Amino acid sequence: MAPRYAPSLWSRLPPLAIILQIIFIVLFAFFVEIEDLAKTDVEEFLNSYAVFQDVHVIVFLGFGFLATFLVRYGFSSVGFSLLVAAMAVQWATLLNGFLLTSHSSSTIRIKMESLVDAELCACSALVAMGAVHGKTNPVQLLLMSLMEVTGFVINQWLIRRFFNTPSSTMSRAMSLHVFGALFGVLTSWVLYRPENEPKHEKEKFDSKSGLFAMLGTLFLWMFWPSFNCALVTNEIAAYGTYLSLAVSAVTAMAISMLSSPKGKINLVHVQGSILAGAVAIGAAMTTVPWMDMTIGFCASLLSVLGFRYLKGHVQFAFECHDTRGVLNVHAIPGILGWFAYVVIWLPRSNDTTLAVRFAVHNICILVMTVSMSLTLGIITGILLKWSLWRPQQDRKCFDDQTFWEFPHLIVHK
Amino acid sequence: MAPRYAPSLWSRLPPLAIILQIIFIVLFAFFVEIEDLAKTDVEEFLNSYAVFQDVHVIVFLGFGFLATFLVRYGFSSVGFSLLVAAMAVQWATLLNGFLLTSHSSSTIRIKMESLVDAELCACSALVAMGAVHGKTNPVQLLLMSLMEVTGFVINQWLIRRFFNTPSSTMSRAMSLHVFGALFGVLTSWVLYRPENEPKHEKEKFDSKSGLFAMLGTLFLWMFWPSFNCALVTNEIAAYGTYLSLAVSAVTAMAISMLSSPKGKINLVHVQGSILAGAVAIGAAMTTVPWMDMTIGFCASLLSVLGFRYLKGHVQFAFECHDTRGVLNVHAIPGILGWFAYVVIWLPRSNDTTLAVRFAVHNICILVMTVSMSLTLGIITGILLKWSLWRPQQDRKCFDDQTFWEFPHLIVHK
Amino acid sequence: MAPRYAPSLWSRLPPLAIILQIIFIVLFAFFVEIEDLAKTDVEEFLNSYAVFQDVHVIVFLGFGFLATFLVRYGFSSVGFSLLVAAMAVQWATLLNGFLLTSHSSSTIRIKMESLVDAELCACSALVAMGAVHGKTNPVQLLLMSLMEVTGFVINQWLIRRFFNTPSSTMSRAMSLHVFGALFGVLTSWVLYRPENEPKHEKEKFDSKSGLFAMLGTLFLWMFWPSFNCALVTNEIAAYGTYLSLAVSAVTAMAISMLSSPKGKINLVHVQGSILAGAVAIGAAMTTVPWMDMTIGFCASLLSVLGFRYLKGHVQFAFECHDTRGVLNVHAIPGILGWFAYVVIWLPRSNDTTLAVRFAVHNICILVMTVSMSLTLGIITGILLKWSLWRPQQDRKCFDDQTFWEFPHLIVHK
Repeated sequence: MAPRYAPSLWSRLPPLAIILQIIFIVLFAFFVEIEDLAKTDVEEFLNSYAVFQDVHVIVFLGFGFLATFLVRYGFSSVGFSLLVAAMAVQWATLLNGFLLTSHSSSTIRIKMESLVDAELCACSALVAMGAVHGKTNPVQLLLMSLMEVTGFVINQWLIRRFFNTPSSTMSRAMSLHVFGALFGVLTSWVLYRPENEPKHEKEKFDSKSGLFAMLGTLFLWMFWPSFNCALVTNEIAAYGTYLSLAVSAVTAMAISMLSSPKGKINLVHVQGSILAGAVAIGAAMTTVPWMDMTIGFCASLLSVLGFRYLKGHVQFAFECHDTRGVLNVHAIPGILGWFAYVVIWLPRSNDTTLAVRFAVHNICILVMTVSMSLTLGIITGILLKWSLWRPQQDRKCFDDQTFWEFPHLIVHK
Repeated sequence: MAPRYAPSLWSRLPPLAIILQIIFIVLFAFFVEIEDLAKTDVEEFLNSYAVFQDVHVIVFLGFGFLATFLVRYGFSSVGFSLLVAAMAVQWATLLNGFLLTSHSSSTIRIKMESLVDAELCACSALVAMGAVHGKTNPVQLLLMSLMEVTGFVINQWLIRRFFNTPSSTMSRAMSLHVFGALFGVLTSWVLYRPENEPKHEKEKFDSKSGLFAMLGTLFLWMFWPSFNCALVTNEIAAYGTYLSLAVSAVTAMAISMLSSPKGKINLVHVQGSILAGAVAIGAAMTTVPWMDMTIGFCASLLSVLGFRYLKGHVQFAFECHDTRGVLNVHAIPGILGWFAYVVIWLPRSNDTTLAVRFAVHNICILVMTVSMSLTLGIITGILLKWSLWRPQQDRKCFDDQTFWEFPHLIVHK
Repeated sequence: MAPRYAPSLWSRLPPLAIILQIIFIVLFAFFVEIEDLAKTDVEEFLNSYAVFQDVHVIVFLGFGFLATFLVRYGFSSVGFSLLVAAMAVQWATLLNGFLLTSHSSSTIRIKMESLVDAELCACSALVAMGAVHGKTNPVQLLLMSLMEVTGFVINQWLIRRFFNTPSSTMSRAMSLHVFGALFGVLTSWVLYRPENEPKHEKEKFDSKSGLFAMLGTLFLWMFWPSFNCALVTNEIAAYGTYLSLAVSAVTAMAISMLSSPKGKINLVHVQGSILAGAVAIGAAMTTVPWMDMTIGFCASLLSVLGFRYLKGHVQFAFECHDTRGVLNVHAIPGILGWFAYVVIWLPRSNDTTLAVRFAVHNICILVMTVSMSLTLGIITGILLKWSLWRPQQDRKCFDDQTFWEFPHLIVHK
């Protein structure tokens, strides 16, 4: 068995990454060109660039540092998030261009909006990565993210194709989180490592890694209003997200303290749960302050309770280990947001057929998104279980030393 | 005495926070709605959104991480800053809407400017928090911040009501820092813990916590030009603040080295003092480069000297412990800025009555702000001393373990 | 010999810094005023302010934290970067105003563009600092940065004066990196300390200092599209830089793993190399996606190989120690970008004289930039070797304790 896990075989990332990268360059050479700025306005460019940058910070800085709470897995958290996201945006640009953009010619013309859309897809892949965080090697992460982006874009395409209605923006926000999280959780379920139970000795945080994770979390928290604006393509979403996040922050800390036997706050739970409000608002799309705040309250309440009680249950009963708790941060608040959307925007008229049609329509979108993500998550899990990818040994999980020249006592070059 | 300090009683944060949160949601339901974006321009929205975001980063990231220099108090620094600021912006939105905004109907219509104003109030509360940093529990912090925001808004309202002149923007910048800092210092004076003297063993920094604090400080330093623009509602302030900050950075380091017996720089002093120039410029509102730079020079000089000599004196002679040195970072530079404002903008004409009236007017504003902050600081201190809030034991000051599930050797859930 | 290195003599920074600062204030008083905003548009101001801020973050946060990887040199990395950059922007504002701006009167009117230009000069000085990082004291750094900024501005002025062609923007991007890096490397060559070889025991990173450096790197990586836009004053550069950076990130990690005997990634190499693509694109100025991506691929490939093989060779064969590897991050990708620029933009017509003139023209610019930087680097190195500046002892290199009140066990004031 030993040679299966020999460290020298980890060098399998370079061929895959380089080959994929060259394929992407070739595809870009054939199909992609940059939208000429002369055609658009510089003013308009700068406005969409500002939105792009906030999303950029969320995807590359926020998600990378959010994951650094694992005390011995900081380099991998930031490094592999960067690797995966950099690959995913390229692949998403191509897929979005082919499937989701209406175009006369065969050429994809990228503009700022294309980059924002590509980063939202990458974001969905990073959500999925959260569930298997620390238990997979970079080759597996790369394959998983490409599968996830493909599935996410196809799901979006199916929704547009079959449910072509004004509710499509809601479906995008909701499905980003729900699709990503359920995909990741199911992949993690297939890849379950019984020997890592009940808890891996390295799956812990310390006072500094907690602060790095808090830094990433705060960037997500601060820029999420922009993220939701980009997601639902409506600037008014910034207000609702802001209010919802403020309430989430207060609620998450209070409930985390309340649900602890010793009356203490759990930093990692709070880091997930202060974001739950924004996830829910992205899908609910309300613009009434008290509704935004109530949804933020409920989302972070559910999220903290999920961390405290559901996470352990899922791990023991369903043999599914969810490192970053994406089920509680993205899936549950996303579904709550969907539910709030259906209740709030239900057409209120004497003609009940309208309301029924609206409800059925949205239930179909949710059911399709959930079943797509569950199916693809299992398929991806089975693919990643293949011994060809050489998953690391159990005792090497959550450990940077497997992949990084570790500097403990080594003088760096 | 033991049960008074029993850790299980810390769970008193949740009821207060949740009840306050629900009250705020109800108040928002009755009185607040979001300004319809159709009425304004998307362009204009994006411009004010950009300013808002810089202030947002300062308030939530900058102030939180600025305070992480205490080696065992990082989680509390970031976490409680978030908690307090998230509460304060909600309360400030309501107070500002009722007291400071002219409106025909009873409804408060929030727009980007309202959020910026609310965050400036929260900023004032965070300044006050700096003085009691590490020596209070979250319940006390929450009450203190609500008192501070109330006092700050009422002070602004009184200034507008009784000194309705163009100098009101100066007064806002000056009073934000002076009001907040003196309020905090007086609260800290009332809450003085003699047993923590001369220095608490945990009140120190290490090489990593110093870097986290530097990160927060740099975000304040970098985005302060935007902050001052928002504060004095004039874009030209960006230039002066920028120049003043550049000079402050150089001066603070040079003076810190000069005033050290061993010729070494004190990182925590420098972190406070490089910001002093921006505080002073916010009040002085000059637009002549050399004046901006001179004010930056003087402000950081006074600030470093204050850290080196005044801080210990205040602690021993007046029995007032000021953890983050807000007196030197905010109060003294704020008063210096006020003084510079009066000297620079003094009407120069033959008619001396104009000049006298201007000076008296501004002296009145300063006196009122100072006396308001001193009075309310003492009242708040007395309120917080009430044993109902269960302040932590002296030996548990400056320690995350009192409030957070501490992860030293604990496998996290 | 002992007194030459006495720590008390480090206090020589304050007089130099304060005198220089006062001289700058006086120069600003005579020659500089702020462009009145009434003359320009607020809209336009806000657009250029947005670009300015991204550059601001790169210069003050990015470069400062990029250098924190040295485990015992974090305070100096961030602190001295701030000190040097704050001085450099003031000096660059004056120099740019006198030499590079056409003006009728003797007054320099600063506007947002002036600040951006000044920060680009400061950026060049920070690149140069990278080569001597950890081996010089702040007085030397201050002198070096003023020399570098002077040389860089004079080089720009000469290029404009003698090669007044549309290619001047390319030359600015290329020379920023190539001039800065070669200047720094040559200074480091003159200052070579044989006793520090083969490696200084303190020249290493740990798991936390690596993360701080990653944070700085990510800010550079994320905001470099804006930086290149500012550098070539063309918004379209954002797309190319973005694509190039995405490819660089993937390639750098893959090649770092491939070129390691154990198949592991070196974090510090990767931190440098993921930026190489953006350096090259800044000079190449292509707007065709696959070209951008190919240049990003080649630049990061060369950069990682440079770190693995060239860096040690340069150190042993040429006795030149380059702490941050600026040769591999800035000089080589910069020259690659220059080469790509010449090949791509070579006029393709029957008249070969046009092509020859274009090539000769650009070769002249490169030769002049390189020879200027080499010459000035050596002169600066000789100047800094002067014992008047009291360079620290070999064993005190890469160590914060030489300059900072070190907080290991010291209770902070």
